[in-house]
Amino acid sequence: MIVAYEGSAYHGWQRQAVGIDTVQLRIELAGTKVMGHRVILHGAGRTDAGVHASGQVANFHTPNFAIPLKGMRRAINSRLPNDIAIVSAADVNDGFQASRSAIGKTYRYRIWRAPIRPVMQAGQVWHYWRPLDAEPMIQAAARIVGTHDFRGFTTSAETRLNTTRTIFRCEVADMGSELLVTVQGDGFLYNMVRNIVGTLTEIGRGRWKPNHIDKIIATRDRDIAGPTAPPDGLSLVCVHYKNEGMKV
Amino acid sequence: MIVAYEGSAYHGWQRQAVGIDTVQLRIELAGTKVMGHRVILHGAGRTDAGVHASGQVANFHTPNFAIPLKGMRRAINSRLPNDIAIVSAADVNDGFQASRSAIGKTYRYRIWRAPIRPVMQAGQVWHYWRPLDAEPMIQAAARIVGTHDFRGFTTSAETRLNTTRTIFRCEVADMGSELLVTVQGDGFLYNMVRNIVGTLTEIGRGRWKPNHIDKIIATRDRDIAGPTAPPDGLSLVCVHYKNEGMKV
Repeated sequence: MIVAYEGSAYHGWQRQAVGIDTVQLRIELAGTKVMGHRVILHGAGRTDAGVHASGQVANFHTPNFAIPLKGMRRAINSRLPNDIAIVSAADVNDGFQASRSAIGKTYRYRIWRAPIRPVMQAGQVWHYWRPLDAEPMIQAAARIVGTHDFRGFTTSAETRLNTTRTIFRCEVADMGSELLVTVQGDGFLYNMVRNIVGTLTEIGRGRWKPNHIDKIIATRDRDIAGPTAPPDGLSLVCVHYKNEGMKV
Repeated sequence: MIVAYEGSAYHGWQRQAVGIDTVQLRIELAGTKVMGHRVILHGAGRTDAGVHASGQVANFHTPNFAIPLKGMRRAINSRLPNDIAIVSAADVNDGFQASRSAIGKTYRYRIWRAPIRPVMQAGQVWHYWRPLDAEPMIQAAARIVGTHDFRGFTTSAETRLNTTRTIFRCEVADMGSELLVTVQGDGFLYNMVRNIVGTLTEIGRGRWKPNHIDKIIATRDRDIAGPTAPPDGLSLVCVHYKNEGMKV
């Protein structure tokens, strides 16, 4: 299933303790009612609290083939709140697992660059009220692209030993009041996109030159990177699988 | 002051009984703290629960000229929730009153025309999942323009005797998944824009021809108009005053 959600009201994607409202829990509860057996979801990305998705992918196993796919999607959607939607559903091979089968992901981060906060986009953008120059951010973003050790762009909470990832795309689009940062890679460390964005904005406000990116990559030093951008602006837009182009 | 808000969380603009959360109440509380005296707002339009604004206008009287305008705006904004913002503030003549001085208003209504509900726009659009043809809606909208008795487009809750209004603009823009309805007039009856939109969608889905509009105007019969569109899609985008063009 491709899943979209506005994550402001949820404690992230992943099911947690009883009483904690998460996107996975909501879809599992709706799916369980529709399928007639307990549904356990495998999601491709564990988005944090307040993070959104237009292209999260999740799969589950079922012995119930009585319900056609379209009817199942509609039935689950009718049992979901307005800020979560199953966009599409398909049968997949038994070996498919949304997270392990993925060969890459694309995230988008929205920065709202204006003195007055944008009320209609509250919770969906990072409101950056200070002046922000897009040009050095565009140059800095290009330096993220490639296979690098991104240890300097994660947190101490990241427990994986291998912190090398390949970034295929890292682009800043200047839309006027809005800056769109698109990052596509074969995998992401904890808080990696938000730390990249926090570093790009420091460069955009003139604290560092674009080549400061090279220094963070070379030293692997989190302390010389920018702050973690807030979750609000972040959205998981696409999960990539084999036999599919890497284009968004 | 020009005021913007995402109205989903509020029981409309107007202050009500104690304990009812409204936009006016929030700004009055913030303004009272900043100005050092009780602030009473006069708003130009009493938007309903769930309705938004990017260009609401409100004024208040104060004997306190110690705080410069920009500082006042910032101080009030810092005491407002994320879904309300003072966009700008100016000194006006003593005779100005946001509602009585207005010579017109512009509303915009967003219809989201797609089978899957839009999670990022939840609460900000009317999700219309049935097929909707823009062309007859565009033709029908043109028939709203002019000076007419709009009794057929209001509700029995409308107590004003004179139900004749002049509509300068009524346009449907086809943006693909989104249809934007813009209505500009010298005044509006209760639920008038939402009833116009509900009627336009009935025409868009093929229930009536565009000239059904003429019949509703001629008969003044609410029963032959369409349903009231939900508040979610509606936004007050501009209030017009003398010595100012009527363009949005």
